[in-house]
Amino acid sequence: MSKQLLHTPEGVRDIYGGEYARKLYVENRLHESLRLYGYEDIQTPTFEFFDVFSREIGTTPSKELYKFFDKEGNTLVLRPDFTPSIARCAAKYFCEEQVPLRFSYMGNTFTNTSNLQGKLKEVTQMGAELIGEPCVEADAELISLVVHALLGVGLKRFQVSIGEVEYFKGLCEEAGLDEETEMDLRACISGKNYFAAQELLEERNVADPYRERLLKVANMFGDMCSLDEAKAMVDNPRSLRAIERLQKLYEVLELYGAADYISFDLGMLSKYRYYTGVIFKAYTYGVGEAIVKGGRYDRLLHQFGKEAPAVGFCAVVDSIMEALSRQKVELPLPEAVRIVTYGADNYQEKLAEVQALRRQGIAAVLTGEAAALGD
Amino acid sequence: MSKQLLHTPEGVRDIYGGEYARKLYVENRLHESLRLYGYEDIQTPTFEFFDVFSREIGTTPSKELYKFFDKEGNTLVLRPDFTPSIARCAAKYFCEEQVPLRFSYMGNTFTNTSNLQGKLKEVTQMGAELIGEPCVEADAELISLVVHALLGVGLKRFQVSIGEVEYFKGLCEEAGLDEETEMDLRACISGKNYFAAQELLEERNVADPYRERLLKVANMFGDMCSLDEAKAMVDNPRSLRAIERLQKLYEVLELYGAADYISFDLGMLSKYRYYTGVIFKAYTYGVGEAIVKGGRYDRLLHQFGKEAPAVGFCAVVDSIMEALSRQKVELPLPEAVRIVTYGADNYQEKLAEVQALRRQGIAAVLTGEAAALGD
Repeated sequence: MSKQLLHTPEGVRDIYGGEYARKLYVENRLHESLRLYGYEDIQTPTFEFFDVFSREIGTTPSKELYKFFDKEGNTLVLRPDFTPSIARCAAKYFCEEQVPLRFSYMGNTFTNTSNLQGKLKEVTQMGAELIGEPCVEADAELISLVVHALLGVGLKRFQVSIGEVEYFKGLCEEAGLDEETEMDLRACISGKNYFAAQELLEERNVADPYRERLLKVANMFGDMCSLDEAKAMVDNPRSLRAIERLQKLYEVLELYGAADYISFDLGMLSKYRYYTGVIFKAYTYGVGEAIVKGGRYDRLLHQFGKEAPAVGFCAVVDSIMEALSRQKVELPLPEAVRIVTYGADNYQEKLAEVQALRRQGIAAVLTGEAAALGD
Repeated sequence: MSKQLLHTPEGVRDIYGGEYARKLYVENRLHESLRLYGYEDIQTPTFEFFDVFSREIGTTPSKELYKFFDKEGNTLVLRPDFTPSIARCAAKYFCEEQVPLRFSYMGNTFTNTSNLQGKLKEVTQMGAELIGEPCVEADAELISLVVHALLGVGLKRFQVSIGEVEYFKGLCEEAGLDEETEMDLRACISGKNYFAAQELLEERNVADPYRERLLKVANMFGDMCSLDEAKAMVDNPRSLRAIERLQKLYEVLELYGAADYISFDLGMLSKYRYYTGVIFKAYTYGVGEAIVKGGRYDRLLHQFGKEAPAVGFCAVVDSIMEALSRQKVELPLPEAVRIVTYGADNYQEKLAEVQALRRQGIAAVLTGEAAALGD
């Protein structure tokens, strides 16, 4: 027998038994939080035309997409991420809609990374998108939903780190950086690579005080007070507006009772081009990567022909599972299945017993005495 | 903007609003039936190595598989069907297990058919597999589960048609048909193509009374009495055993209270090579194709290195949805989301109101007065 007959491809896997029961529990709990906040379920296809995930839309590098052809020769892609698909749906079915739209989704996403990275290539994601609301209350709603959803699955120690890309953009504008330098610097700061950032700014002849301010962004994280420091350092209106927005956001999050889980990080600059304002990531103990990622993307829907601001997030269920397991959070499990055995002459009686249990909502199995012993 | 940016590829689609709410309801109800019968959820990857779905295993023709490569050059396939994946898992994780295994699954499957056929290329399937039970009580359990699951989603008028491939195989053996003729004849009879079957048997010089008996199989369907007629027509032990098994199966289904939904069809010969005994299909008004397909496949697990009989079924959620819609079956829908609006000076108060509703389990949205009007 070929080895490929028993094994799954690298980076994808089977989930069963207690582990899958826990995964379903986590999915149900997350879904319940999305429902309570009034988000409407939507399902998009597992694969889409390549264009939906192309470089202009800006999510996953083309070489990390699983690509194949349909019988007509069109290039299809297994979705690496839901946001462009939801944006496409909003533009297609609700193009003229002016009332804000709230969508939630759940499903698997696929990234064709190298095996050497040791990452999962198929993960389950759930998330929410709020389309048509430019206000800070919308940002707060999404972040509060993240906090309540994570509390809802049983996590207690986690933090939602919040940034604002406009603060950094204001500084870049002030310093007169060209787009390329801005993108390169963004990559250095995102990667917390301070020396590379320094070298880059020297090489491009960025003068002080701009150079110093730009480098400081990498270390601008902390609680609410760190925002005051960040504010004191700038005088361009774009950066100032960004800080004021974050301060207002914090006030609303206090009303939600979510402020205890919040910190700020102005050096958080997502690689996704589509984020335009607030961005946020939730971290917890036991998992290195963010378990939730989100932000505001006010220009993405324009790509699909709808003019609407939007904010959303996506939670990686597999990472949340890993965190729960590392933190030894106990989840309530479904009741064990009742096993009823029958012998040579009491099948009818035992079947009636099992059917009665099922009618009461109790999971039950009927099995022959010999089979129950594995004979 | 390119047309491909707004549209889904042919044969796959977006589902939202009331339609998706109904789909989730149907999935939950089907899942509840599977749970009550003691079937344990299992999740396999969306794509697998080509070998798992190859011709020898015998599910979907290679040209109808979505195939692509991983970075190492292995051929991967989007699963067209769950049964081989579940068989692989049973063999991989439970190879030495002697106690019967009950697995249930839910997810999407993919078939790369031609656009001209107008079929959905991505459908949601749910199903159950009972591994390690050769007895007729196991066949009855699966068929009863189908009946209760369909009643559970609100269908009332449906029929589970049951066949037995061994009856036909016994006749073929008696008539001395070679394997090729048997396969060709099977295709003719499955397709209800009586004249092609007649021509084939003449061409291959099959003599009476065998020719006549083989042709009659195509018309052997009906209630319990039709089994007596089928029995009277044969004297080979293989066919006789098949009829006796169906008669015993019917008796057990009577104990389950499922007999009203049962009919027999000895001309039902699935194209799937892996079925070895009983096969069944559920039909209902408004949908031409079977909404559930299943049967016994005692040799499939051997292909994966585990010696175990098995019986299972798969329900096509999209087809059940279509039937419910055509039959105008009303499904209970989730309560509408409460909309709470806030004005210039009462955000805090209204937020408290919305949060209180959510704590009571009521879905609620908080929105600005202007946004609520679409201004």
